[in-house]
Amino acid sequence: MSTNTDGASPQISPAGKVVALSGGIGGAKLALGLQRVLPSGALTVVANTGDDFEHLGLHVSPDIDTLVYTLSGRSNMVAGWGRADETWSFMQALEDLGGETWFKLGDRDLAMHVVRTMRLRQGDTLSAITADVCAGLNVGADIVPMSNQPVRTRLRTDGGWLDFQDYFVAQQARPVVREIAYAGAESARPADGLCELIAGDDIDAIVVCPSNPFISVEPILAVPGVRAAIESAAAPVVAVSPIIAGKAVKGPTAKMFEELGQEATAAAVLERYAGLIHVFIADPRDIPALEGVGSDVTLVAANVMMTTLEERERLARKVLAAAGRVVRNEGDLCSRLGSS
Amino acid sequence: MSTNTDGASPQISPAGKVVALSGGIGGAKLALGLQRVLPSGALTVVANTGDDFEHLGLHVSPDIDTLVYTLSGRSNMVAGWGRADETWSFMQALEDLGGETWFKLGDRDLAMHVVRTMRLRQGDTLSAITADVCAGLNVGADIVPMSNQPVRTRLRTDGGWLDFQDYFVAQQARPVVREIAYAGAESARPADGLCELIAGDDIDAIVVCPSNPFISVEPILAVPGVRAAIESAAAPVVAVSPIIAGKAVKGPTAKMFEELGQEATAAAVLERYAGLIHVFIADPRDIPALEGVGSDVTLVAANVMMTTLEERERLARKVLAAAGRVVRNEGDLCSRLGSS
Repeated sequence: MSTNTDGASPQISPAGKVVALSGGIGGAKLALGLQRVLPSGALTVVANTGDDFEHLGLHVSPDIDTLVYTLSGRSNMVAGWGRADETWSFMQALEDLGGETWFKLGDRDLAMHVVRTMRLRQGDTLSAITADVCAGLNVGADIVPMSNQPVRTRLRTDGGWLDFQDYFVAQQARPVVREIAYAGAESARPADGLCELIAGDDIDAIVVCPSNPFISVEPILAVPGVRAAIESAAAPVVAVSPIIAGKAVKGPTAKMFEELGQEATAAAVLERYAGLIHVFIADPRDIPALEGVGSDVTLVAANVMMTTLEERERLARKVLAAAGRVVRNEGDLCSRLGSS
Repeated sequence: MSTNTDGASPQISPAGKVVALSGGIGGAKLALGLQRVLPSGALTVVANTGDDFEHLGLHVSPDIDTLVYTLSGRSNMVAGWGRADETWSFMQALEDLGGETWFKLGDRDLAMHVVRTMRLRQGDTLSAITADVCAGLNVGADIVPMSNQPVRTRLRTDGGWLDFQDYFVAQQARPVVREIAYAGAESARPADGLCELIAGDDIDAIVVCPSNPFISVEPILAVPGVRAAIESAAAPVVAVSPIIAGKAVKGPTAKMFEELGQEATAAAVLERYAGLIHVFIADPRDIPALEGVGSDVTLVAANVMMTTLEERERLARKVLAAAGRVVRNEGDLCSRLGSS
């Protein structure tokens, strides 16, 4: 293990491409940073679809949508979810009609769900629809769903098995989680070309965004072939901790770790990614406790909070710089720290 | 034929019920008048569903919706269609996504289409869904779709056969119409209980609202059993002319009459309804030309324009009064004009 606590980021201009695995809000922040510092077209974001669900007859893909809105400059930076300049007439009228209002669908956001649902019913794939949406909204990255088959994150709680949105939104992540499953994962296939992309020679870095491991990253890894593609990839794998000084930046990550019998620490995150990643980037306060946790993992200290746009870009540059200092050779990791 | 040009309306309090056949905007005006002057629960409006279509994967029922919005006080009185206080964020976002924007779906209006589509896919009937919507929005009448099976008004134009909304909205009723068909009508069934309701002893009047005969009233009559139920009904049938002094109040009615080789006159409307109705209410200017057109039809002169709410109520009272002066006996019409 080696540690780089040098705050200075060398200027990185990858010749090739970068693949990032991301859930919603936290992951999208780093994805935006990566998009902004990489050449146009260099970034592919693999989106978790384990949170997808059918609601009011519409196919909702929350993580894809958060990524699309964030990467196209349409996200609501204040609320942290949904679209900027959103209006809520539909929800009011839905309430008048006695419809289900526990999941908030903004008027602008609805257009995405309506178009996606229509095209899925016509037989188009989620990949193709998402690619068209990205092109139409001038997203500067390719957003690729992990699979075109349904994989649904489900949580066993003290009150029984719950669908993800029931747990997360309707019950506001209050139930105690005992077990997590990715229903349908066994028979799902990675989106066309995804594994080939990940394992391709022209990929400079594979980035695991600071998303919740259990409900954002591991559903992606549960799609048969994805983990193996990452393990066999030529590119170094860099993960960013979603936990800072024992607290999740957002959402129920910390609570979920504890309920599943683990400490809510960056070290616990690193342990989950052991064997998969080569670089782990965490808050400087978390670095001492990480020493010795993951053998062969390079630790990098950085501000992973990403409150401002500048912080997102700075972290993205740090991720790319760390990847640029690592060379993988036939399964062995050769650290080139300090060699550049 | 007898003519009543007496403008004074006796106070009518029907003991029983009233059934009105209606298309969208023009018909809904009279339906609102009827709802306001009748006791609560006395009015059933049979809605044309020939204009229904699937758009963006959503089932849109324009005439049902116009009736629901009008009878629940939610209609846009200025635009003449859609909901009051409507917002258009969805359409803007849809345009950004490159979606079809030729048919305007307001944000509030969308709630209706989403709920209806979801429930139809779940196996509920359009009747049941519409009944729940009416109850939820405090509509003071029963709105009943003419059929729960699809009947689709299609128009043969110089450019070929067109679906109704393609003709009416996308092409703004510009193509010359040569023929009209109600696809699916032969195999459609009237909504459950509709014919029994129409023919019931407790019905005091059957009202043909001032809607376009070709595209609003005749699709209803084309559903097998509906015309026969009206013909065999105990209640008198009162129609209101949608044409005033040679001009349609709204929409392409006059143009359509001419293209189909008929004069755009109240007399042409009366001819189409001959054999079905007992009372025809038209603008005083049109009455002279109506004398002798329909044998056994009582002519009533009235302001059928209905610009104000008061005019709608006044016309509704006139419709009910005219019905109250007619007694049908085994197919023969006995005019009781002046007997009350």
